[in-house]
Amino acid sequence: MKLWQKDIQVQQRVEQFTVGKDRELDLFLAPFDVLGSLAHTRMLHSINLLSDSELALVQKELKKIYGSIPNGEFVLEEGVEDVHSQVELLLTRRIGEAGKKIHSGRSRNDQVLLDLKLFIRSEIQKTVGLITALFEQFQQLSNQHQDKLLPGYTHLQIAMPSSFGLWFGAYAESLADDLIQLLAAYKMSNKNPLGSAAGYGSSFPLNRQLTTDLLGFDAMHYNVVYAQMGRGKTERIVSSALASVAATVGKFALDACVYMSQNFGFISLPDELTTGSSIMPHKKNPDVFELIRGKCNKLQALPTEITLITANLPSGYHRDLQLVKESFLPAFAELQSCLEMTTYLLQHLQIKPNILEDEKYRYLFSVEAVNQQVLAGTPFRDAYRQIGAAIANNTFEAPATLNHTHEGSIGNLCNAEIKNHLDQVLQEFNFGKVEEAFRGLLGE
Amino acid sequence: MKLWQKDIQVQQRVEQFTVGKDRELDLFLAPFDVLGSLAHTRMLHSINLLSDSELALVQKELKKIYGSIPNGEFVLEEGVEDVHSQVELLLTRRIGEAGKKIHSGRSRNDQVLLDLKLFIRSEIQKTVGLITALFEQFQQLSNQHQDKLLPGYTHLQIAMPSSFGLWFGAYAESLADDLIQLLAAYKMSNKNPLGSAAGYGSSFPLNRQLTTDLLGFDAMHYNVVYAQMGRGKTERIVSSALASVAATVGKFALDACVYMSQNFGFISLPDELTTGSSIMPHKKNPDVFELIRGKCNKLQALPTEITLITANLPSGYHRDLQLVKESFLPAFAELQSCLEMTTYLLQHLQIKPNILEDEKYRYLFSVEAVNQQVLAGTPFRDAYRQIGAAIANNTFEAPATLNHTHEGSIGNLCNAEIKNHLDQVLQEFNFGKVEEAFRGLLGE
Amino acid sequence: MKLWQKDIQVQQRVEQFTVGKDRELDLFLAPFDVLGSLAHTRMLHSINLLSDSELALVQKELKKIYGSIPNGEFVLEEGVEDVHSQVELLLTRRIGEAGKKIHSGRSRNDQVLLDLKLFIRSEIQKTVGLITALFEQFQQLSNQHQDKLLPGYTHLQIAMPSSFGLWFGAYAESLADDLIQLLAAYKMSNKNPLGSAAGYGSSFPLNRQLTTDLLGFDAMHYNVVYAQMGRGKTERIVSSALASVAATVGKFALDACVYMSQNFGFISLPDELTTGSSIMPHKKNPDVFELIRGKCNKLQALPTEITLITANLPSGYHRDLQLVKESFLPAFAELQSCLEMTTYLLQHLQIKPNILEDEKYRYLFSVEAVNQQVLAGTPFRDAYRQIGAAIANNTFEAPATLNHTHEGSIGNLCNAEIKNHLDQVLQEFNFGKVEEAFRGLLGE
Amino acid sequence: MKLWQKDIQVQQRVEQFTVGKDRELDLFLAPFDVLGSLAHTRMLHSINLLSDSELALVQKELKKIYGSIPNGEFVLEEGVEDVHSQVELLLTRRIGEAGKKIHSGRSRNDQVLLDLKLFIRSEIQKTVGLITALFEQFQQLSNQHQDKLLPGYTHLQIAMPSSFGLWFGAYAESLADDLIQLLAAYKMSNKNPLGSAAGYGSSFPLNRQLTTDLLGFDAMHYNVVYAQMGRGKTERIVSSALASVAATVGKFALDACVYMSQNFGFISLPDELTTGSSIMPHKKNPDVFELIRGKCNKLQALPTEITLITANLPSGYHRDLQLVKESFLPAFAELQSCLEMTTYLLQHLQIKPNILEDEKYRYLFSVEAVNQQVLAGTPFRDAYRQIGAAIANNTFEAPATLNHTHEGSIGNLCNAEIKNHLDQVLQEFNFGKVEEAFRGLLGE
Repeated sequence: MKLWQKDIQVQQRVEQFTVGKDRELDLFLAPFDVLGSLAHTRMLHSINLLSDSELALVQKELKKIYGSIPNGEFVLEEGVEDVHSQVELLLTRRIGEAGKKIHSGRSRNDQVLLDLKLFIRSEIQKTVGLITALFEQFQQLSNQHQDKLLPGYTHLQIAMPSSFGLWFGAYAESLADDLIQLLAAYKMSNKNPLGSAAGYGSSFPLNRQLTTDLLGFDAMHYNVVYAQMGRGKTERIVSSALASVAATVGKFALDACVYMSQNFGFISLPDELTTGSSIMPHKKNPDVFELIRGKCNKLQALPTEITLITANLPSGYHRDLQLVKESFLPAFAELQSCLEMTTYLLQHLQIKPNILEDEKYRYLFSVEAVNQQVLAGTPFRDAYRQIGAAIANNTFEAPATLNHTHEGSIGNLCNAEIKNHLDQVLQEFNFGKVEEAFRGLLGE
Repeated sequence: MKLWQKDIQVQQRVEQFTVGKDRELDLFLAPFDVLGSLAHTRMLHSINLLSDSELALVQKELKKIYGSIPNGEFVLEEGVEDVHSQVELLLTRRIGEAGKKIHSGRSRNDQVLLDLKLFIRSEIQKTVGLITALFEQFQQLSNQHQDKLLPGYTHLQIAMPSSFGLWFGAYAESLADDLIQLLAAYKMSNKNPLGSAAGYGSSFPLNRQLTTDLLGFDAMHYNVVYAQMGRGKTERIVSSALASVAATVGKFALDACVYMSQNFGFISLPDELTTGSSIMPHKKNPDVFELIRGKCNKLQALPTEITLITANLPSGYHRDLQLVKESFLPAFAELQSCLEMTTYLLQHLQIKPNILEDEKYRYLFSVEAVNQQVLAGTPFRDAYRQIGAAIANNTFEAPATLNHTHEGSIGNLCNAEIKNHLDQVLQEFNFGKVEEAFRGLLGE
Repeated sequence: MKLWQKDIQVQQRVEQFTVGKDRELDLFLAPFDVLGSLAHTRMLHSINLLSDSELALVQKELKKIYGSIPNGEFVLEEGVEDVHSQVELLLTRRIGEAGKKIHSGRSRNDQVLLDLKLFIRSEIQKTVGLITALFEQFQQLSNQHQDKLLPGYTHLQIAMPSSFGLWFGAYAESLADDLIQLLAAYKMSNKNPLGSAAGYGSSFPLNRQLTTDLLGFDAMHYNVVYAQMGRGKTERIVSSALASVAATVGKFALDACVYMSQNFGFISLPDELTTGSSIMPHKKNPDVFELIRGKCNKLQALPTEITLITANLPSGYHRDLQLVKESFLPAFAELQSCLEMTTYLLQHLQIKPNILEDEKYRYLFSVEAVNQQVLAGTPFRDAYRQIGAAIANNTFEAPATLNHTHEGSIGNLCNAEIKNHLDQVLQEFNFGKVEEAFRGLLGE
Repeated sequence: MKLWQKDIQVQQRVEQFTVGKDRELDLFLAPFDVLGSLAHTRMLHSINLLSDSELALVQKELKKIYGSIPNGEFVLEEGVEDVHSQVELLLTRRIGEAGKKIHSGRSRNDQVLLDLKLFIRSEIQKTVGLITALFEQFQQLSNQHQDKLLPGYTHLQIAMPSSFGLWFGAYAESLADDLIQLLAAYKMSNKNPLGSAAGYGSSFPLNRQLTTDLLGFDAMHYNVVYAQMGRGKTERIVSSALASVAATVGKFALDACVYMSQNFGFISLPDELTTGSSIMPHKKNPDVFELIRGKCNKLQALPTEITLITANLPSGYHRDLQLVKESFLPAFAELQSCLEMTTYLLQHLQIKPNILEDEKYRYLFSVEAVNQQVLAGTPFRDAYRQIGAAIANNTFEAPATLNHTHEGSIGNLCNAEIKNHLDQVLQEFNFGKVEEAFRGLLGE
């Protein structure tokens, strides 16, 4: 074995091992890192750690860098370890010593914590927009097809009448409930960790309330040890909320795959959205729904992955936490693509008419028949016996009409009330506050 | 092989296999099942499916049954499958036909859904009480020991000064954040599923708003297909919130185990709360903290278990859902015992004085020293070089005082602000509304 | 707050918290604990730590205790913490001081490790027996119904001809593969940890090879630190193997639930093995299959639970490990019941004849038709175009016969070869060696 | 809403959504896809579906393509969906119609199944090599430092004497045990799925035994429905085995992080392999060990992810299965890098001498002292009382020597026996058979 100091190749592998996918992942965080520095430097100026002229220089260059990100101009140069270093390097190159001062009073630990929080807020906002669009698509279909009946299953056995109105409407309401979890995750993420430094605070007289306000946070994670503890915890809680949304979307995709099977045949998609075969004309493979289902199931493994990475680590920073980014940062785009695709497929979904005319659904209305007799005054046991006998004699006739009137039933979907619930939760996100803060930071 | 119809023994095993632990688990749900029936029968009366006298009889007997539960008088008799059947059996035995009518307009599906929601609300309330007690214990210790310093670690390497004030206070703030998730789970659980029947509603003209009000729910799960979809989903979301609390408590227990090791020696427990050996006087095994840690880690597996049971089931009831109860129902008591034990151990925790006097912590203040020089006007690089040289020459002297003043730092813990955050979340639970509704139902 | 020393009630709760379900769980381990003591005491005698007469006394009483376990006579008395203490208590009560010596040269750590290994070996043997029975049942049905065709699905779309022979046979082969994992888990479990004491060995001149031989182990876990590390690891690996079997059984149960839906209608069960309704004569709920599916999915969460409990614990014993027993010990019986029930249901499964006559399966043979033309000499593209045109013109006629001849296809199931694979794996378990060793220990 | 047919941009997103990372992931499989085609075409020739000249042409070009892969010449061209299509495209471009025939008698389903099996075999072979290297490194250190004592901990409390010999040796033995699981996974993977086509076999008279032999498989997955069922199942079982190795490596990394803390200080790394600070000279952050730990913990989440993607999918192919590749294919390289890095770090690990001289370890030998008196004839209770009194009086003196002689103890590590166990498992892999088969296929 060579002396390791000389073993350049191995040293490079150590380097590669520790940096991992960080350079590439840090691009997710770049705009937020600059926004954080815009706020932090204004705070440093307020406590006299930056002069007026230094602040002016730094703010001007940071805004230039911020502007260069969307078009892909901002890249991590060879040998630069992370986004924080790249920003500092660009600044120092352009404005000299003042550029180096932006790191005063913080450490990489609270800087990446801050970047993650800002990234999460932004991605949750995008996700909420797509959830809302899908919700509306579901409700539109629920209203449009409210009179079209479906068999309802229990145990995958044909049981009671259901409807497309109920089916689509159920998934809309499910999304509205999922938004409650997402709001909780947003609230937990919407707290400022900046100033916690390496997890034990700083002897500089930082004004954390100022950066909290400048960055549009609801509040701060006060205790600096806890702020650091938020690394990994925040991602776990957010990913649990994403998993909840994924569970709803994936379940719908599963239902759709089942209903597209020729053995059900309740819905279909235009050929262009399926794969198939010219010699098997009935075969329309629902690949997109299957991938939505699969991606959504995969997303539900993310909280466990994060839990395993962070389990039983004593308080204080550990490098393991860096690895959470690998699966966490791309998870938003993954879920967002599932939301978009589902909305898109729904726009083209074809619904089979007159499903219940098939012979195999004939007993679907037997419970209805019993109930109608009961409501007409026959004691339940008699009604039940009577209908049972009619079925046994093959003289059973299904009621001509279905009269479900209570809240949330086939005849009374309450979609407006459900929409109202969604709207109440949406309001609480208060994304406008963040947008206003960012306009202030960027001087727009 | 015998004809199976004659194979009594095997038939019993089928029976045993399908009933499983349900009879025992249903006792968790008994009081809530009766409360649900009190509300449901009042609603049935309001739509003329129960007469005045039937209602009076039924309510009186239901209240008697309710009263018999706390002292253990209520049991599932041999051969009775579940709590719903046991209640119906008792009623029919005592008041005849009227007892059978309590099942009109609902099915076991929405009945157990309702029982679970009521059980969850009640258990969350207990859990919140214990979280609050533990929060206060942490804050009390944080305030009491705010001046006692600890080494702060990053990478488990001695890094910067920390304090008992920070350490205890961090876990208090962590619990306050966890409460946000628990509130979201509570809100999602606090919606009435009654009236969804077998998942497709009913042709009876049910008044779901009435039972919603009588049972103190915030709202209802409107769409009946979604209400049924809430089975499994509710438990998953609640268990994620419990897992969040468990993550905090388990992490503290881990820290405590580490700090009780003789290699740290920062804290200790009285002998009576540890196990040890008379010939190894230093050995004080922190079994209770270890069990808290282990139980809390185990609780974090629960959401995955529920996800696996419910994954890829098409919409509609499936018997698999019954199995969720096995791990879910006892999880509350498990977490509650961890919360109580942690509070109890904290009340007896002994803190070692003068920890930082140990030689190995001597460089803990080197960053402080640099910062103090910077604040006094020395450029950072010069200050850094100077302190580095002092350390190399062995002339380094740690600053006599620590002056951390910003929000959430050693000198400014902001415990009051954190308490304020907790109180805001606590208010939103509005447990009083439920208590009032139940008093109304029970005629108290 | 009272002084805690006086707070008896709380002390009891600490006691209860630490003991947990251990007393009840230890009954699973009782016979193995006695077998372990029979071997350990013979070894102690061989190194002169027990006299001849002490050995004779101890062996006689241990065998008595062993005999008393199957009929439930052996119980943990009030206040006795674990099975080891109960055995020691009984011995001491009956034979005095010699009873206390059985603990020499071991600690509870290696004693419970040993009990777990012996328990696991025994339960794996039972499980393997039930797997083999289910395998044979699958193969018997595969052979019996090899000519009955089924539609084969891809993407849940009707695709190609399949058969009951293939379907049942597939699950038999799946079990044979699962047995490979179970064998690996058995091999890892079949190593003697006794002598590792508290995880650091002992200064007594133990003869670990002797206990290894007496207990029928393949080998020992040599390194005492590693032997201790086997706690938790063994359970994780075994539960992964159980999860593999559960995945197969659960997947079959899912298929069965789907095929029992009226929308497929491929199989059915006699009424007595389903639940249903007299007014919905078609409804036969496959509750037993659903519970098998659900239990098998739940079992697949067990490795994660164990991983979470043991993750990131430094080497050496921690009390957390005790908690693994709670879910692990009962998992065998849970899987065994699923294996038995599946075998039982298969014995009564009814298969629908002539499934493919249904109109919706008409294009199932289109790929066959193309292939037959290709084999007859038509170039593939021409054959494909021709069949495609026939389908478009509605002149397509399915081939009268199906001629799949290659290994593992409809016409050549290779069930004997698969059975042969199973038998090879079965032999490697070599359960006879253990049985012989135990007969030796018990002097039978 | 536009007519979707015209909505090119959205169509592209559908395309992008379904292809996902497949094009990039398929490069992992490229060499194996070509090897599979080399075997498959020879089989087609043997059943007269390829002429002699077609076979010659095809084999020559396939070997050229195979040769072009290692240097990166082989790429998926724009618009080509997967590796199978790219190979077919290259062939057809170069040799015309004959190139198209390579797809006869198989489908993409069994083709990707085959590629995965071949990839897995190859990666397991690499992994086994690295495990063996790490095993040997552990054993070498164990032998080298067998006389250097360490404190042994239980409950993280100082308990009994241990040694570097035991510590390093334990992890070697752990790897040897993990290899048993990996062998089982290898055996399950080393079965030929080719010929199962889309999961229901083929009417071509395929000779599956021939491809089984040509590709060096142990056997085939006979039943074609089961062969297809192997998709997802194989990956899950292999990833469980990788997780087992990861658990061992991660646990060692955790131990190393703990022992590198100044509060233990048992081991250290040269500065170049840590990160630190010039003003905190004691701080040597074990980033590499932390990343090994984190990556290994992350790998332990993979079986759950795969289980979640595949849970409750009925038998038959579903597109969801494609997603398993995303995390599974790179998992090997991830684990391999952890194995390599651990070996590398071990080569540079520095061990602190005379650890036990520290005052806090003084009672470490108290159990030894009792045992030595017992062996010298003192009854245990007397010995225990005597030593306890000596400790209480501060007159306790630790025994001068440690005399652990039994198998696997400090004085008798049994490293050779453990190595012997490893070698037995290594032999069973029989990688030579595969290598020979590949040489045959490539005509080398």
